[in-house]
Amino acid sequence: MRGGADTSQKDSVLYFATSNVHKLVEARIVLEKFGITVRGIPKDSLEVQSDSLEEIARTSIIGVAQRVKSKVFVEDAGLFVHALGGFPGPYSSYVHRTIGNEGLLKLLRGVRNRSAEFRSAVACSEQGREPTVFSGKATGTIIRQQRGNLGFGFDPIFTPDSGDGRTFAEMTSAEKNLLSHRADALRKLGSWILKHG
Amino acid sequence: MRGGADTSQKDSVLYFATSNVHKLVEARIVLEKFGITVRGIPKDSLEVQSDSLEEIARTSIIGVAQRVKSKVFVEDAGLFVHALGGFPGPYSSYVHRTIGNEGLLKLLRGVRNRSAEFRSAVACSEQGREPTVFSGKATGTIIRQQRGNLGFGFDPIFTPDSGDGRTFAEMTSAEKNLLSHRADALRKLGSWILKHG
Repeated sequence: MRGGADTSQKDSVLYFATSNVHKLVEARIVLEKFGITVRGIPKDSLEVQSDSLEEIARTSIIGVAQRVKSKVFVEDAGLFVHALGGFPGPYSSYVHRTIGNEGLLKLLRGVRNRSAEFRSAVACSEQGREPTVFSGKATGTIIRQQRGNLGFGFDPIFTPDSGDGRTFAEMTSAEKNLLSHRADALRKLGSWILKHG
Repeated sequence: MRGGADTSQKDSVLYFATSNVHKLVEARIVLEKFGITVRGIPKDSLEVQSDSLEEIARTSIIGVAQRVKSKVFVEDAGLFVHALGGFPGPYSSYVHRTIGNEGLLKLLRGVRNRSAEFRSAVACSEQGREPTVFSGKATGTIIRQQRGNLGFGFDPIFTPDSGDGRTFAEMTSAEKNLLSHRADALRKLGSWILKHG
């Protein structure tokens, strides 16, 4: 396995257009295992409104790949709460910024079905080429009170089914990466890069 | 005043790209008073994600005006609840579709400040020309229980400050147009069209 600092092979560097430093850290850890060094670049383009994360990511990467000369990817994620018709879904970032974890917990007061899933869509493209999109997900439960201060967004109220009862916000990035929607999608990206270069 | 069916003067026809028939009815009533006949056309383009309705409308009209040969406008609106940091704001349509009026009422349980405002942004353009954007708003209060079945979206839980205590959903389109954010923006559009043709 090549270390994170080894950029001697051009193919081992991949740009990640994001304004979220947590996502950048998570992506670095996942893709390092594929011998890929991830470099963050600002994401200054607007996203479209859509119920589909894949459509949002696919549209975003088209704009980004026009100004970045190298292979680059974007990622869009959301928390889909089943009892709330999928809310907050693709607008999770805005919803977290306004009503926050407490708002979501309030909406679920008295609601029996607390199942939810985090979903991620990663879109990768190289200037002018058709984007390739990878999806990932993590099913779990919305708990009744926030726990943990790691991660970001709705992490403190979500426990993944495949975990040990801790929320995403009670895990290090490395631990979260074993279970998360984003790591799921990023591993598909990593395998694809290894295969297609 | 020219009637709605009079299209003998090319300038008196304006296209409205929208998938919302309620908005189309409201726009027809407002702009008829300016001698403008409104014709609805499908809005098949995606909107961008932004906290600014004006930015969303401005971006939308650029795509629409590329495929429509005549003068055309779009409108974007949202309900901004002050105690919720502006939520649901530009994502009002999605939020209404998922958690609905009841979800918003639940979020405001126990909250003293129930002030809110509906905002509207209208963007108008003719092929190739820089869009012009008009804003409108209606301040009011989120009531405790839904009332009325006219209008659409969050109308049943909003009473405008300038009204008689009825919600927007208890008013006909003509009555709502005397007080609404959308009519406010559309009247600015109407005056501008009369002046600039």
